[in-house]
This record gives sequence, C-alpha cells and structure tokens, in this order.
Amino acid sequence: MTSDHWIAADWGTTNLRLWAMRGAEVVHQRASARGMGGLNRTEFAQVLADETADWAEWTGAAIVACGMVGSRQGWHEAPYAKAPTLAQTPLANVPGTRVWITCGVSQDNPADVMRGEETQIAGLLAARADFEGVVCLPGTHTKWAHISAGEICSFQSFMTGEVFELLAGKSVLRHTVASSCATEEEAFDAAVNDALAQPHRAYGRLFQLRAGALIGDLSPETARSTLSGLLIGWELAGAKPYWLGQEVALIGAPALAALYARALRHQGVQVSEADAEAATLAGLHRAWKRIGETA
Amino acid sequence: MTSDHWIAADWGTTNLRLWAMRGAEVVHQRASARGMGGLNRTEFAQVLADETADWAEWTGAAIVACGMVGSRQGWHEAPYAKAPTLAQTPLANVPGTRVWITCGVSQDNPADVMRGEETQIAGLLAARADFEGVVCLPGTHTKWAHISAGEICSFQSFMTGEVFELLAGKSVLRHTVASSCATEEEAFDAAVNDALAQPHRAYGRLFQLRAGALIGDLSPETARSTLSGLLIGWELAGAKPYWLGQEVALIGAPALAALYARALRHQGVQVSEADAEAATLAGLHRAWKRIGETA
Repeated sequence: MTSDHWIAADWGTTNLRLWAMRGAEVVHQRASARGMGGLNRTEFAQVLADETADWAEWTGAAIVACGMVGSRQGWHEAPYAKAPTLAQTPLANVPGTRVWITCGVSQDNPADVMRGEETQIAGLLAARADFEGVVCLPGTHTKWAHISAGEICSFQSFMTGEVFELLAGKSVLRHTVASSCATEEEAFDAAVNDALAQPHRAYGRLFQLRAGALIGDLSPETARSTLSGLLIGWELAGAKPYWLGQEVALIGAPALAALYARALRHQGVQVSEADAEAATLAGLHRAWKRIGETA
Repeated sequence: MTSDHWIAADWGTTNLRLWAMRGAEVVHQRASARGMGGLNRTEFAQVLADETADWAEWTGAAIVACGMVGSRQGWHEAPYAKAPTLAQTPLANVPGTRVWITCGVSQDNPADVMRGEETQIAGLLAARADFEGVVCLPGTHTKWAHISAGEICSFQSFMTGEVFELLAGKSVLRHTVASSCATEEEAFDAAVNDALAQPHRAYGRLFQLRAGALIGDLSPETARSTLSGLLIGWELAGAKPYWLGQEVALIGAPALAALYARALRHQGVQVSEADAEAATLAGLHRAWKRIGETA
C-alpha cells in the first residue's frame, strides 16, 4: 500500500460497487449484489474483506463509501447534514476500521432526505466549481436540488422510478406494458406534454394503458413509453419551481437521464448530462482527500 | 329444485362469493379464495360443483355470475357491451352448462372497461329506477359512471386502490405507513384538500411520508391517512367532470366508500351510499329474471 491507494464504495440498498483507486484513477472495479438491505450490522466488514481480497496492493487502504450503508439500518449511521449545507458533507468513521462514510443530507420543511446523491453533487462540483443552478438525479427516488455557492440549498424527492417499476411490474398494467424496450419518442413526448399540461388528468390515464390494449391496439411498447412519459411529465409538473428558467445538470444512468433531458429540452430548459458513476467517483475522491482533515 | 331457486356468483380475480337464492332472498352464502386468477379454463365447473355440493336443494339450479370469470382469461368470454349501454348488459351462456355470465362494458374513447361494476349499477337501478346522476364504485380500480335513462353513458377508471396497496405495501413507504388503522380524519381531509387544490404537487408529497418519519415525528397512522387522502384527492381532481354539480351514488365496501363520501361532501356534493354486496345481488337477481328472455 502506498498513500495514494484507496478504495471507493457505492453501497446502496441492493448493490455494492467497489473501485480500487490510485488517486483519481480507477485501477480495478467490481460490482456485487451484496447491498446493505440484505446484510446485518456484523456482516459488512466481512463482505468488504471478501470483495477486495484479491486487491493485494490495497490491503489496509482507506475506504470511502456513500449510500445507504450509512443509514440507521446500515453498517454505521452517518448522520444527516441539514440543508442548506455544502454538498461535500462530513465523513463518519466506522469505529475500529479504515472505513469512512459520507453523511447524507436532510431538510426539515418539506421533510426530505438523500443519501449518496450529495456525493454525486459534490462530484459534479469538483468539475464545475462555480455551478449555480439545479441538479436533477433521476433514479428510484429522483432528486431535484438547488445548488448555489457549493451548497445544496433545498431539494425534493419524487418516487418516479419506484412508481414506474411497481406499475409496470406489479400492477394490472404488467399485462400490457412491455418489460423493456426502446422508448417510442412520439408516445413519450405526447404523454409528457399531457401530464405537464394537465397533471390532474394524468392519474386517470393510467388504467387506459390496460384498457387500450384489451379493447384497442395499444402495443406493449407504446404503453411502456406512455407510462414513462406520464410519470416523468407528472414529476416535471411538480418540480417546475426547480427547473423553470434554470440551467439543469442531470446526473444519472444514461438511458434514464436521456429521457429527462428530452422532456426538459422540450420545455426550453438548458440541460447538461453527467455520468452518474463518474460523479460518484469524483465525489468520493474529494471525500478521500479530506480524510486527514476530519480524522 | 323449484323454479325460484338459483345461485348468484361474484367471481373475481382473487375471490369467489356464492349465494344460494330463493327469488330475491339469500338462503345460504359462502366465500372462497378460488378466484379466476388461479384457475385454468377446465377447472371452473369443478370448483362450482365443489363449492355448492352441500346445497342439495339447488342441484341443477341456474347460476348467474358476474366479474372476471367472464374475461378472456376466465371461464368463458362474455363480450363487452359498448357504452352507452343499458347497465343491465346481455348474458353469455357457458356452453353445455346452466351458468350465465353478465357481459362487461367497454368504452372506445377514452379506452376503458368494467366487469362486474355494470351488475352493481344495474342493482342500484333496480332499487332506484329513475336515478340520474353519477355512480362511483370505489375499489381496486375505482369506476365513475354517468347514468341516464338506465344507461351507462360514459365512465372512467382510476387505479387508486391498487396504487394505494402498492405504495403502502411494496414501496419504500411500507416502512413508514401503518399496515392498517382507523383513518385520522384531520390528516385525511388535509391531504384530500391539498391534492384537489394542487394535484401537480401531490406526487411530490409521496416521498415526504418516508422522510417525515425518518427525520420528523410523522406517525405510521398519520402517514397512512395522508397517503389515502392524497390518492383519493388526486382521483377527485381527475374525476371532477363526473362529480361537479352532480348527485353521486357510492357503491362500495363501507369503510372505503365512507372515505369517498367524506371527501365528496366536503366539496359540497350530495352523496348516497349503497352496499356493494346488496347491489351485486340485486343486479344478479335482475339478470336471473332475464334468463328466459336471452336463453
């Protein structure tokens, strides 16, 4: 081990991703399904040891983690920093280890929380130090955040990703919505526009995706694209105070972020897209460089 | 068997309910979990034979059924009658049996379907022949229907019941929403009003039910009442063309119908409540009396 060796960890509820780092450079990486949701408190250390066992050069290296591993049900609680707060939140050390976990961010009113996204925002700000505007992080629980002077000023979560998975996979719509397909842009755009223009009507359109297939010729692919458009349009209607007249930086998985970018650009919003993994790594890298300060 | 003996069946996706009838009078009744969702086409006759085996006086009696048993995936497809149509839809005979299934109702634009609710509406109209107004049938897929001159003129479905179950039971909100409790009226009313007044903001309030419990003092009971109010308020926002300035007859399970009644009355709507089981039986009874005509 040399002092520029460290390990980055994105440890969420369902997945664990690990990178063997040399400074800002990725040397090895690995993904596993050993997310915190399936582990009890005594198992985390062993999982980490198992998953990094063949990274001999990194034996004893510092590990910097973000995500649900720092929740109350995780390995060690990394308390929330209260917004407004620097995106670069404090680090919590797991006692007796070389593991550090970035703190999440909470907001009192309206009540909201994030864990992991603050690290991606910090990563974005590492590359764009004077970014002022709005960051949108599409995902299971999409986050919108106002950023100013390096701080997360306020934010709001939308359950769009989870609602989409539940409706497409677990509701009666599962019979009529394709399990995966390329987005049909025309159906997606129309649904976004409808939901944005008349959000109170979007809810009533959900069952039409079932009925339209039963008695009409609605295809599973069109139904999926429409469902996606309705939910994203609905979210945009609620998130309008965030994006209206603002520059929006999207951080997310490319395919999903592209849908948000498409919908926002149609509203005349200036959008940039950043890769979620790169943002996570940049944020963890910033955190790693600060270990000395907080230790 | 005498000619006034018949069997009523409400045969849905998950449940089968049976009544041994003498004219309009219930003599025996039984409920089982042998819904059509778990049966293949060859099993229905046997299930019926098993479940009615000890009703000796009803051997060979006519059976009138409504619900998903008449869907394409059910025992025998009872085709949709297209709205506008009499609530008392045609009956489809299962070939080689004494079983009759009431047809569902479809609507082309916007696409929608119902199966079973038409029979409940027919039952309501049996008691109130000159009812003109709107019927609302709260449930897994709540239906709203304009009724005039005995006809279902137009209708719309909302997935409120199913969305509530998915969010409360399968989403991240399951950790913070009580699995059952008496509705807290204050929280319910406030949520209905918020969602009705600002339906575009209701979507963004869902995750607050998680965050409010994590970092605040939101109780599981208040979270459940709020979730219920948000979804019903959201539905009312979309269904406004149905209920605004109309008399609404609710047909549903008493506890759920009471929530809709409460929300509607707060909007100044005149509401009556009918029991769902009584409406189903009255509708099936009307259908039974018509077997001679259609046979």
